[in-house]
Amino acid sequence: MHALAADLFPFCRSITGDGVRATLARMSEEVPIEVHEVPTGTPVFDWTVPEEWNIREAWIKGPDGMEVVNFANHNLHVVGYSTAVHETMSLAELKPHLYSLPDQPELIPYRTSYYNRNWGFCLPHRQLEALGDGDYEVFIDATHGDGHLTYGELFIEGAECEEVLISCHGCHPSLANDNLAGAAVAVELARHLASEPRRLSYRFLFIPGTIGSITWLATNEEKIPNIRNGLVITCAGDAGPVSYKQTRDGNALIDRAMKLVFETSGDEFRIMEFHPYGYDERQFNSPGIKIPVGSLMRSQHGTFPEYHTSADNLDFIKPDRMVDTLEKATAAIEVLEHNARYVNLKPMGEPRLGKYGLYGGGGGQRKSDFSELALLWVLNQSDGSKDLLEIAERAGMPFRKILTAARSLEEAGLLRKEEG
Amino acid sequence: MHALAADLFPFCRSITGDGVRATLARMSEEVPIEVHEVPTGTPVFDWTVPEEWNIREAWIKGPDGMEVVNFANHNLHVVGYSTAVHETMSLAELKPHLYSLPDQPELIPYRTSYYNRNWGFCLPHRQLEALGDGDYEVFIDATHGDGHLTYGELFIEGAECEEVLISCHGCHPSLANDNLAGAAVAVELARHLASEPRRLSYRFLFIPGTIGSITWLATNEEKIPNIRNGLVITCAGDAGPVSYKQTRDGNALIDRAMKLVFETSGDEFRIMEFHPYGYDERQFNSPGIKIPVGSLMRSQHGTFPEYHTSADNLDFIKPDRMVDTLEKATAAIEVLEHNARYVNLKPMGEPRLGKYGLYGGGGGQRKSDFSELALLWVLNQSDGSKDLLEIAERAGMPFRKILTAARSLEEAGLLRKEEG
Amino acid sequence: MHALAADLFPFCRSITGDGVRATLARMSEEVPIEVHEVPTGTPVFDWTVPEEWNIREAWIKGPDGMEVVNFANHNLHVVGYSTAVHETMSLAELKPHLYSLPDQPELIPYRTSYYNRNWGFCLPHRQLEALGDGDYEVFIDATHGDGHLTYGELFIEGAECEEVLISCHGCHPSLANDNLAGAAVAVELARHLASEPRRLSYRFLFIPGTIGSITWLATNEEKIPNIRNGLVITCAGDAGPVSYKQTRDGNALIDRAMKLVFETSGDEFRIMEFHPYGYDERQFNSPGIKIPVGSLMRSQHGTFPEYHTSADNLDFIKPDRMVDTLEKATAAIEVLEHNARYVNLKPMGEPRLGKYGLYGGGGGQRKSDFSELALLWVLNQSDGSKDLLEIAERAGMPFRKILTAARSLEEAGLLRKEEG
Repeated sequence: MHALAADLFPFCRSITGDGVRATLARMSEEVPIEVHEVPTGTPVFDWTVPEEWNIREAWIKGPDGMEVVNFANHNLHVVGYSTAVHETMSLAELKPHLYSLPDQPELIPYRTSYYNRNWGFCLPHRQLEALGDGDYEVFIDATHGDGHLTYGELFIEGAECEEVLISCHGCHPSLANDNLAGAAVAVELARHLASEPRRLSYRFLFIPGTIGSITWLATNEEKIPNIRNGLVITCAGDAGPVSYKQTRDGNALIDRAMKLVFETSGDEFRIMEFHPYGYDERQFNSPGIKIPVGSLMRSQHGTFPEYHTSADNLDFIKPDRMVDTLEKATAAIEVLEHNARYVNLKPMGEPRLGKYGLYGGGGGQRKSDFSELALLWVLNQSDGSKDLLEIAERAGMPFRKILTAARSLEEAGLLRKEEG
Repeated sequence: MHALAADLFPFCRSITGDGVRATLARMSEEVPIEVHEVPTGTPVFDWTVPEEWNIREAWIKGPDGMEVVNFANHNLHVVGYSTAVHETMSLAELKPHLYSLPDQPELIPYRTSYYNRNWGFCLPHRQLEALGDGDYEVFIDATHGDGHLTYGELFIEGAECEEVLISCHGCHPSLANDNLAGAAVAVELARHLASEPRRLSYRFLFIPGTIGSITWLATNEEKIPNIRNGLVITCAGDAGPVSYKQTRDGNALIDRAMKLVFETSGDEFRIMEFHPYGYDERQFNSPGIKIPVGSLMRSQHGTFPEYHTSADNLDFIKPDRMVDTLEKATAAIEVLEHNARYVNLKPMGEPRLGKYGLYGGGGGQRKSDFSELALLWVLNQSDGSKDLLEIAERAGMPFRKILTAARSLEEAGLLRKEEG
Repeated sequence: MHALAADLFPFCRSITGDGVRATLARMSEEVPIEVHEVPTGTPVFDWTVPEEWNIREAWIKGPDGMEVVNFANHNLHVVGYSTAVHETMSLAELKPHLYSLPDQPELIPYRTSYYNRNWGFCLPHRQLEALGDGDYEVFIDATHGDGHLTYGELFIEGAECEEVLISCHGCHPSLANDNLAGAAVAVELARHLASEPRRLSYRFLFIPGTIGSITWLATNEEKIPNIRNGLVITCAGDAGPVSYKQTRDGNALIDRAMKLVFETSGDEFRIMEFHPYGYDERQFNSPGIKIPVGSLMRSQHGTFPEYHTSADNLDFIKPDRMVDTLEKATAAIEVLEHNARYVNLKPMGEPRLGKYGLYGGGGGQRKSDFSELALLWVLNQSDGSKDLLEIAERAGMPFRKILTAARSLEEAGLLRKEEG
């Protein structure tokens, strides 16, 4: 996953343009992503697909003719969606177009101006402060014009038409945790899901933030009713504890699955209530859409000092943390796949487990933590009113342990799966 | 408010009598209080309006003919509702009629004997201990007889007949926090409410404790159904943190409003569950009345050492604390006035706020605490099922911030207020 | 209670056999227990009543002809349900049949092998380690064969057919806390209940664990619907804080009663959620039976080092702790007996308690903890929707205090008990 993120890192992504296309092309080498192009001007709910932006070259030369900054060195140097410019101006005229972080003087900030036409450069504050008076030559070779909004989609069909949505924003340029790590985790998750038989269908979206989800929703309204649960995967690779932001109502299956996975993992974790700021979960959870989409991450956007700066680089994302994020997502999806109601077929007292080879043998043991405990939980709770997730929640046990118990009991003829 | 409390302090209030009349007369200079007189003997539910008590003079002279205590110096010196007496008696005969506080030997306690006819004096324990043997002359010039129970009422009519009740007990003599501070806050609240357009109607009661609320309820039963929320204001001026005692069921609008106001104030506060001891909220919340009346206070009765002693004087109540109590009450009433359900008219994804001048401009900001957050909360939650109070509770934001967001969105045509 | 436990201690109990009969015979001297015998082979749900086991003699003699262990010294020395054996064997052949506790080298463990035919001895680890090579003579004079499962039952009829079940397992040999203490508490509880008029009926079971409750349930199915609450009493005498394990759904009357008793006792306590491991509550709470049976104990099985060892002896159980367990059980049963809904007959405001002799007299007291508080709670909450238990829970007062208040108000004509 880290290698894929490294390959994607240099591309200059934005909400439109060739950087997005290059990114999707590289990801398509891993999994069969379908690339969609939506024309500029397409009305999408309250929005309109914007003009496509492409940039080829950008730099500032100082009074001495030396380059001050060059887009070729780091694509954060140019404010996203900057207009073309080629002028010579005084430092005073230039300064309103320069962005830096006084509190983090070595870092380049990330800035965009999608809907107000403007141009600008981002640079370390220390470099900004060192600029002397004189004439500066400013050059941006960028185009705005009719084109397309480009996004990737990957549909993995299951036995049922009920879908799980996995969405990653792919509009940020060279920022690793936000969100190449998320995209890399999603690609691996897709590969894993495609490799196994599955009950549910899965839809992966690799889209620009906000306008991308709005565009997809507006052009795929007929698909919305089948999507019952979803995850935005973002900031998936930093060293912070794994975190989950709940869906709008906080009681979707994905919310309960993720909570159980976190609580039974033994790892530090954080669960946050829904709030209407963040990534594309804002759009999926809007009152007219109401797809319950949670957000899986490590550190939350805006809460780590590297956020939206040149310090969010490939060193900032850790291979083992991406693996951990992937495992947590996989475990939660296992719950969605296999949760079901079972009915105890010998509900009068406990069955004699020894008859079925399900008993460890020997009474009077000294341990209160009996290994058949999952069997006993499933037998006790399976009166048809509770599903395996509820049993696992109540038992405080990993879902897999409860699922294994249910399957053992089913094989022994002690349990029957309820349909529907 | 402190000045009004100071003017009212010297009057000798009780559950009936001229002290109450003088108090209401002085308050009527501030707001147009209507004074009601209910005759002695009027049956009021399980009670009867008692005889009116008036006192003119009371003192004890010692064996040396010098005054030991004199009602003219402090009206706490006489037990409320004391009968007339003029006798000479030994110290041993006198002592059962003397009340003091051994643990607070400098303070005069507050005592009453409304329903057992008796007489008594209250004095500092140190003074009691210093009394020598000999004959004491005791004199109380007081009358019990047919008269009236006097109370004040102020009705501020709103656009709707739904009422909010504000009640203060006014039966305590020279005790400042309990409850001249409450009365002063209520007077200012009434003045404020009368000065603005309002949806709801407000009914203020200035009544003697227990018998006053029972009398009002028994003689105004037809008004009860319109009263949907209420507040007893008491002990409103001491330096303790602001406190709220919930209504009987704890889920009235006033309970939620007060909780939100407290929680979003940044101030220390305390919320107590309902319990059937306290002031007139006991009567309003009785099972046959069921008006949800909470109680707004600072320190709770009986929990501060100055309670029901001469130390509950004008120094004990703080002008800034009375202002704070008033502001909290006003903020809670703002919730009652303006709470409503709104419907998002562009519910598919988020509307593009920039189109309506509602967006700060510029993506990629570094702050997670976005200033448009209230707009986003209102948009996200306004599916017609949630009102502004629920949204503010969930967002953890002051009601006014959510209300302002709703009004901005309504002006932009993005939100519609639901009727009823 | 300790004396009864001491008398019962030496008998070699198991899930069947003469030790159980001797135990029940001794208990029958205290209360009129009815002894039931269920024949071997009787099908009981998924189980079958096992062969009866009786043991007369058992020992191991070492290479020097000296006794290594002898059942006559401690009945824990023989694994429960050991088959007969008389052989001479090397230490290596013997060792798989010897059980000890390496971490508690001075104690004899308790072991059984009910459903796998085998034989074995239990002994202190220190003794096991000291055994030298050579030939050991092993002798167990025990029989397995058709016989009976023996249990005791005591039914105390009340005015209503609704029953409370009290169950104790009686299948453990010389283990005092597990469960002679529980049996002794149950016997005293039965004696107490039989001595007073009662509304409810009580059914006490003294049964072997698991197979006993399954046998009783399978052979008494028609009695199940009348049983609405129950308690397993176990580990009732150790020095640990009193503990309660909830019923399957955790919301039965017995759960709420026990919680109130604990919370208002001022004693340290522990309440555990239901889990499907433990004693016979597992069977009673199974999904086909659904009798809400909680478990009253002090330390939980498996959590104290003396558990299932020879250290669980008569010194380990404390007379005062058994009394405390009994008192808690009695108090909870008082709730079951007397909980009822009452209706306030003077619900408009508070009645004037003084008229009925229910008021302490004198207003203006300085204490916030008013002694008539229970009266006020009952009056305030008795609108017909809440029962005394709910009122006591809300008031945080002992049930008896609320019950006393209700009865006083009923006598005064202020309250009426609701039927049904």
